[in-house]
Amino acid sequence: MNFQPAPAQKLYPDIVWKRLFAELDRDGQGLNIQIRRTIVCAIEQGVLTNGTRLPSTRRLAVLLGVARNTVTAAYQLLIDEGFLASRERSGIFVAASTSRIAAGPERQDAGDGQWANRFAIRPSDLRQIDKPRDWLDYSYPFLFGQFDPAIFPTNNWREAMRATSSVKEIYGWAGDRVDDDDPDLVEQLRLQVLPKRGIFADPDEIIVTIGSQHALSMLVQLFVGAGTVVGVEDPGYTDIRNMAEMATSNAHMLNVDRHGVVPDATLSECEIALLTIGHQCPTTAVMPLQRRKDLLKTAERDDIILVEDDYEADLLLEGEAELPCLKSLDENGRVIYVGSFSKALAPGLRIGYIVAPRSVIAELRVLRRIMLRHPPTNNQRILATFIALGHYRLHLKKTGAILRRRADLISGLLPEVLPGFRWRRDAGAKSFWIEGPPDFDSGDLARAAREKGVLIEPGDIFFADPETGRRFFRLGFTAIGEAKIEAGLRLLGDLVPR
Amino acid sequence: MNFQPAPAQKLYPDIVWKRLFAELDRDGQGLNIQIRRTIVCAIEQGVLTNGTRLPSTRRLAVLLGVARNTVTAAYQLLIDEGFLASRERSGIFVAASTSRIAAGPERQDAGDGQWANRFAIRPSDLRQIDKPRDWLDYSYPFLFGQFDPAIFPTNNWREAMRATSSVKEIYGWAGDRVDDDDPDLVEQLRLQVLPKRGIFADPDEIIVTIGSQHALSMLVQLFVGAGTVVGVEDPGYTDIRNMAEMATSNAHMLNVDRHGVVPDATLSECEIALLTIGHQCPTTAVMPLQRRKDLLKTAERDDIILVEDDYEADLLLEGEAELPCLKSLDENGRVIYVGSFSKALAPGLRIGYIVAPRSVIAELRVLRRIMLRHPPTNNQRILATFIALGHYRLHLKKTGAILRRRADLISGLLPEVLPGFRWRRDAGAKSFWIEGPPDFDSGDLARAAREKGVLIEPGDIFFADPETGRRFFRLGFTAIGEAKIEAGLRLLGDLVPR
Repeated sequence: MNFQPAPAQKLYPDIVWKRLFAELDRDGQGLNIQIRRTIVCAIEQGVLTNGTRLPSTRRLAVLLGVARNTVTAAYQLLIDEGFLASRERSGIFVAASTSRIAAGPERQDAGDGQWANRFAIRPSDLRQIDKPRDWLDYSYPFLFGQFDPAIFPTNNWREAMRATSSVKEIYGWAGDRVDDDDPDLVEQLRLQVLPKRGIFADPDEIIVTIGSQHALSMLVQLFVGAGTVVGVEDPGYTDIRNMAEMATSNAHMLNVDRHGVVPDATLSECEIALLTIGHQCPTTAVMPLQRRKDLLKTAERDDIILVEDDYEADLLLEGEAELPCLKSLDENGRVIYVGSFSKALAPGLRIGYIVAPRSVIAELRVLRRIMLRHPPTNNQRILATFIALGHYRLHLKKTGAILRRRADLISGLLPEVLPGFRWRRDAGAKSFWIEGPPDFDSGDLARAAREKGVLIEPGDIFFADPETGRRFFRLGFTAIGEAKIEAGLRLLGDLVPR
Repeated sequence: MNFQPAPAQKLYPDIVWKRLFAELDRDGQGLNIQIRRTIVCAIEQGVLTNGTRLPSTRRLAVLLGVARNTVTAAYQLLIDEGFLASRERSGIFVAASTSRIAAGPERQDAGDGQWANRFAIRPSDLRQIDKPRDWLDYSYPFLFGQFDPAIFPTNNWREAMRATSSVKEIYGWAGDRVDDDDPDLVEQLRLQVLPKRGIFADPDEIIVTIGSQHALSMLVQLFVGAGTVVGVEDPGYTDIRNMAEMATSNAHMLNVDRHGVVPDATLSECEIALLTIGHQCPTTAVMPLQRRKDLLKTAERDDIILVEDDYEADLLLEGEAELPCLKSLDENGRVIYVGSFSKALAPGLRIGYIVAPRSVIAELRVLRRIMLRHPPTNNQRILATFIALGHYRLHLKKTGAILRRRADLISGLLPEVLPGFRWRRDAGAKSFWIEGPPDFDSGDLARAAREKGVLIEPGDIFFADPETGRRFFRLGFTAIGEAKIEAGLRLLGDLVPR
């Protein structure tokens, strides 16, 4: 982009530049990057037009209180990319202009009413998970499924990122894989992740998904027609119930006792059942081995497909080996296994997977292609490298120890802060399931606690009949640091009626 | 992890180590990383067990032909992470062991037959896109939708990656956003990307998707029930037709002429139509302004929702401004806009978006949450930074110039290499749409060409009636470098019957 002499040279006073850069954040991305972002954005917005003269590097450095060579470096990169141009003895000027199509006619938004009668489904009618998006702003987030980011293995993740950003690696992930996955991630799953759970699968028995949510919704789409009898746990994970109810009018609520789902007549009626075995969600129940075997026997006798949502695998807090997962006990190939890295590493990555017979995986691969092609390949590749370098194993070990201390701390405090309550946390679970006295309403407690900066998850959302769940709440400890736990629990205890 | 004296110290001869490291690839990830991957994998696999003594750094360096400090650095990192331990005067030993649950009973895969009668839908029955996954291994890939990776802005992408891997940034993206998007990406879309196309949207009128494929499949799920009349173009994009046919028994094939889709009686019967306006897929037709206006008039009169799949926006080859998109001309808020970064940046990233009235976005947000929560946040954040730094604009400019040269080269050669054929490539399109003489079969040509290392896309897949498409093929030029074009076309020309 060659600089053309500007028709009219614009000069702005210092105050304009100070205002333009007012949002500079010393704790955010690098200052060099922020300065460039601001100038590019102003050019794209038409705020800075072709020919506008920029302050000298010395002047801008003074105005912003940054090192002069930060400004010099930022200007130079923008000159290299053609956004700015330097003219001998007269300074640095904007050399690029934006082209945009004028706003069209004022839009009439047809409004909710008119659109509503065009929807084939109405997802917003379902019961909604209410997780505060701004949970990081609360002092005491006793949440499940979020991590205090201090747990995230920043340096090791960066190493895996760097290793996958060479030109050759980018060759490997930038392209469209159509319906395929990154072979390296599939290998790491097969050889390192799954064998620890007793699962030995071939590459064509595995498909990668956008987290376990996507795995479950694809399975529902594949197996559940308008009349299919599908079993979901009650209490159970809200969005599995939502999924099932969106797909069929025959969603059956399965009974759950202290050992997890009950292999009773309700289950026997189902054609397919979506189950949490390792830790029943939300009660944390670890299903005993005998129950697992009984479940498989029932499924075989009544020809039920079992989907095992093993959302909390891998992260062992108690140092002891887990029970073999349902899939590893399955002699008849009727268990479909769903796993995820959301609960053990970072939910924001959205990587999960399905292990299933190859004829099922083959259909899922086509379905996934039509739905969204494939999960982003760069993330698959970074994760594969992260696992291959042993970082995942190390992360699980470190995180397990951290979470174990938190769990022990909470166990020790609960009798004192919540007298008259009962609770449960089975080995390895990352949350407590707490039951209040008969008149207790966890929704009231959650609202009052939120005012004090304490977040808990009311139990009603997990039950088909919210009233049944009123006395329960979930207390997670992956998102709250050890140092905050005692103060948070005491605040919570003070809000509970005695 | 403290090293425990091993029960029995294992010593392997050099040949074992050479074999273990046999797959070291000098062009792949860094050697340090590959050495660590290999050792970690061997430990996880149980090939190297606790107490096994490793070769000295000097010895391994000689065996592998790498610098000794590469081996030293790799060993040291593995010691830091507890995989290896160093014992004074006796060497370096494996200090970790793997724990895995034994393989369960031999599985009976129920086989295709038994699963088949459990599927509610059968995606593999649809007509399948057949893109060779190994296209990078072909010398002359005249494909659409793949990029020769040389086009990917490696260094600038890396800068955006680095900028988003600070601890504070990771705080921002590692968590579960439930149903939310990265606010920075939404801002960049609103302020930089969309205005160039005449679209001015509020944040709550935008949702991010896993590429445009995911955008379209969500819209189909939201608007298309079992009986909804949905219009898809014929010829048109195969997987849009597949999606529509999976959702309803009333998919209508819309007529397409040289100006794109025709606003005729067939369209008027539809409740919703999925259209390509900017470049009709696969004919490359740019719909003239008057046709766009007629289309909007028809939609208003007959109450049709129009989905505009603007898959090829942004990347201008001809230097001239594009026509305003349908969405920007829409006075009645009945156009839903779908965009993507797959065709302009990298399909492997899987980032697209929908712009729609806020009541539609609100439903889509719930639907997306239930389907898969949200697209990976780290990729959203990297892309936002990439755009904010002006790298996207620069990339479009550079890539536009590269692709323009390829297009001109092909235009110049076609009359000579394919005499008797007709072709079309409207301004800005990244492919040619080629029609052979009456007896020509593009499937035959594609098969013969593939043998010679030349990939083209037969036209039949784009047509509801494959026979109609037999004479056509698509010739893309985003995946093939300029230097290969002439030789590839001549090979192709030699295969065409004269």
